[in-house]
Formats: sequence, C-alpha cells, structure tokens
Amino acid sequence: MKNKKEIIAGIIIIGNEILSGRTKDLNTSTISKWLNSIGIKVQEVRSIPDVEEIIVKTINDLRKRFDYVFTSGGIGPTHDDITSESVSKAFRLKYEINEEAFKILEKYYQPSEFNEGRQRMTWMPSNAKLILNPSSGAPGFYVENVFCLPGVPSILESMLPSINNKLVGGDPILSLTISLRTLESEISKPLKEVQNKNIDVDIGSYPFFRQGKVGVSIVIRSKDKSKINNCNSQILAFVKEKKIEIIERD
Amino acid sequence: MKNKKEIIAGIIIIGNEILSGRTKDLNTSTISKWLNSIGIKVQEVRSIPDVEEIIVKTINDLRKRFDYVFTSGGIGPTHDDITSESVSKAFRLKYEINEEAFKILEKYYQPSEFNEGRQRMTWMPSNAKLILNPSSGAPGFYVENVFCLPGVPSILESMLPSINNKLVGGDPILSLTISLRTLESEISKPLKEVQNKNIDVDIGSYPFFRQGKVGVSIVIRSKDKSKINNCNSQILAFVKEKKIEIIERD
Repeated sequence: MKNKKEIIAGIIIIGNEILSGRTKDLNTSTISKWLNSIGIKVQEVRSIPDVEEIIVKTINDLRKRFDYVFTSGGIGPTHDDITSESVSKAFRLKYEINEEAFKILEKYYQPSEFNEGRQRMTWMPSNAKLILNPSSGAPGFYVENVFCLPGVPSILESMLPSINNKLVGGDPILSLTISLRTLESEISKPLKEVQNKNIDVDIGSYPFFRQGKVGVSIVIRSKDKSKINNCNSQILAFVKEKKIEIIERD
Repeated sequence: MKNKKEIIAGIIIIGNEILSGRTKDLNTSTISKWLNSIGIKVQEVRSIPDVEEIIVKTINDLRKRFDYVFTSGGIGPTHDDITSESVSKAFRLKYEINEEAFKILEKYYQPSEFNEGRQRMTWMPSNAKLILNPSSGAPGFYVENVFCLPGVPSILESMLPSINNKLVGGDPILSLTISLRTLESEISKPLKEVQNKNIDVDIGSYPFFRQGKVGVSIVIRSKDKSKINNCNSQILAFVKEKKIEIIERD
C-alpha cells in the first residue's frame, strides 16, 4: 500500500502546427498510456503556440501544480524551436551548450559537418540532465520535474523507456472496457446508479460508430482490481436484464 | 481591410478518455481548420477531466482571454456528461430544461420512449441558444462567446457549418507548404534568415518520415498572399542553391 498519494502529471504540447489543425496530436495519447502503466495520472494537457512568453508562463504554472510535466516539441534545430531557451528562462537558468549533448551529437553526425543548426540542439538550460534518443541522436533533457521531449511521435515514443527509472509512480491504473450494442440514453440511468454505488471508481461512457452501427463503450478505471470487478458485475446485471448485446469486453 | 484586429479562440477538450490516452483527440484539428478558414486563430487548447470545478474554472479563464471558446465533450445523456451544468455555473445561470431542445428531442425519439437519459440532454443554462445537430438530434448550445459541442468527431463536424454565421471572423489565414528531401539541420540557417526578413509571417519547420525516408515540411502562414509568395521565392532560392529536391508544394 505504498504510494497511496495520487501522482499527477501535466503535458504541454508546443507548436503552431497543432493549433492550426495541420497536425493531429498523437503524443498526448502515447505519453498518457505510458504514464498510466506506471501509476501516474495525467490531469491536464495544454497545446500552446511557439511563443516564448506563453511557453515560460505555461511551464511555470504547470510545474508547480503537478508532480511531473512533460513537454513535446520545439527542441529541434530550426528558428521555431524555442523550448530549450524557454525552459531556461522559466527556471532562471543559463542557456548554454551541454557538453555531454555536444559530444553525443558531434559523434552522431560524423562524417557530416557538425554545423550551426545541429549545434543548436546542444544548447540547454545549465545542469539539464539528458534523455537519450535511440532514434535520431539529439537528446531531450529534464530540469527538476520538467521533461522535454521532441514533437515527432516515433522519436518521442522511443525515448520514454529511458525515463521510467527517473519517475516515482504509484500503483498502475487498471481499466476494463465493456462495449455494448446500445445507445447511451438506454443505459444512462442504471449506469449512473452503478457510479453512485462506487464513487471512488472512474466510470466513463463513450458512444461510438463502427461499420455503420452505433454502440457504447463503458470504461471502468481504478487501481484496485476488485473494485473494477464489482462494477463489472453490477453493469453486467443490468445489461442482462435489458437484453443488451455485449460486443466485447477487455 | 476590415477586421484588422486578430480574432482569437480557445478550445477546451473535456473528458477523461482523452487524458487517459484511450482516445486520440481529433476535434482540435477539425475545429482549428474550420476556424482558420473563417479567419479565427486558435491560441490555446486545454484537455481537462470530467470534474465540475476544473471545467468551471477553465471556462471562466478562457472566455475572458479569447474572443471565442469552443468546448467539446460532456453534453450526452450519461452521468459523466457534466458540461452543460458546469457552463451554467461558470455563467451563474440557472440549469434548466430548454423548451426548444425538449421539443426537438421529443420528436426525434418518437416512437421510442423519451426517457430520463434523453431528457437530460435538454437541460442547459437558461437562455442558452441552440446549435442544431443534423447527425443525431441532440443540439449543442452557446452562451455569450462559449460554444458547446459534443465529443464524437463526426457529430461535432456536422454541427460546425451552422455556427458560421454566428461568428465574426477576420481574413482567412492562408498557408503554403513546401516539402523538401532534406534534414532540418541542413536548412536551419537560411530558413532563419528568411524568417528574420519576414517577421510578420509565421514560418514553421516540421520534420517527417514517410515510407522510410526523411524530409522537412516548411509551412508559411499569413493573411497576405503576397507575403507568402515573397517567402516562397526566398526559400526556393536557397533550396536551388543547395540542390535540395522539392517533394511537393501546395
């Protein structure tokens, strides 16, 4: 029963391409699922533009409110990559070349030229600790509880395992999904009763359309498997009574 | 040259399913692209859980800072749908049956029963104005500058056209994308020079991996087509000089 305190995190998605609608944000889902698996709950996500003042303010707001903050985007070599400099300002740290990152990238780019753009990716807040990048060389970094990752989804995903041992998580958050061939409005009343009887379990209801047919997924989430099982039994009871088809349960 | 002032918007994505990573957020991209087309720029997106206090606080924060706020999610018939009640509290309005919505849904569900769950979708802030729903009956609504839409992407998308004439937009934001067979670090220096020469144009650089090959998309955004054309010429000049292959331009 250690780590009874809930460990919570915030995510900051940095980049005009998300706000303009050009790019769909895939990183929130990747980071959230990974955090769930180590018992950390994401409480807020903010998508913000590549504007230094806004990045600094958002980091300073979230790092005080959450145990961990993860940023995605803005650590590449181009002029619109201003996350590292913004994090330096947020923590009032010098923005300077990280020697370890310099060595990694100097070697990574051999025999090509280690030009100004590439060197730009070694500029970080002073004393930043590196997050190694097995996909494309350029490391991310963290300062205190703020972890800075790149925006490209496959690269970001490849860097998460190396952070695992740097985080203190809680018990993993377990979930069970029951997908039914019904409408939300058919089950809202009995489902509410189940929620009221199990107030410390998170029960969500999500309508869907698949292959032209409507359905509802009920998602039960808790750290306690027996509580999930209890809700499951109570839901299956009204599902049976109402003769609703169960599409799948996992 | 009317509407010279920039019109800005915020989006609030409400729902535990986004924060848990179970569901990827598609609505930000849909809403942003549509707003771009009518000259409104999205400045911030927040994803928050189904918790009344947080919803109320977020709505009250964003509605003061932005010309328009769009919420997605939480207006269905189940116990976890608490957006309407939260908006009522944010505006200190009564939460009550909207007669017009009641008539629409009573008719929509005939000859099925107009049960408690279905009636729940007619409860709204007093004096809310409806946003009609051509897909699935249940209307969204708006109060002052806050527009409340459902979370299911296809339904949300079908409701946007009917809001068009309720918004005052600016000139549409135009964009040009130039995709190159290169690395960001190869072009970061000349691209920065183009940005410095065109400070009122938004130039973004986005690396990509497609079919095993890397590339970079440069996105030029402005309300002024001639400014986009200027940047385009300056970028094509260094692309030619560096003998970089142009994959596409649109």
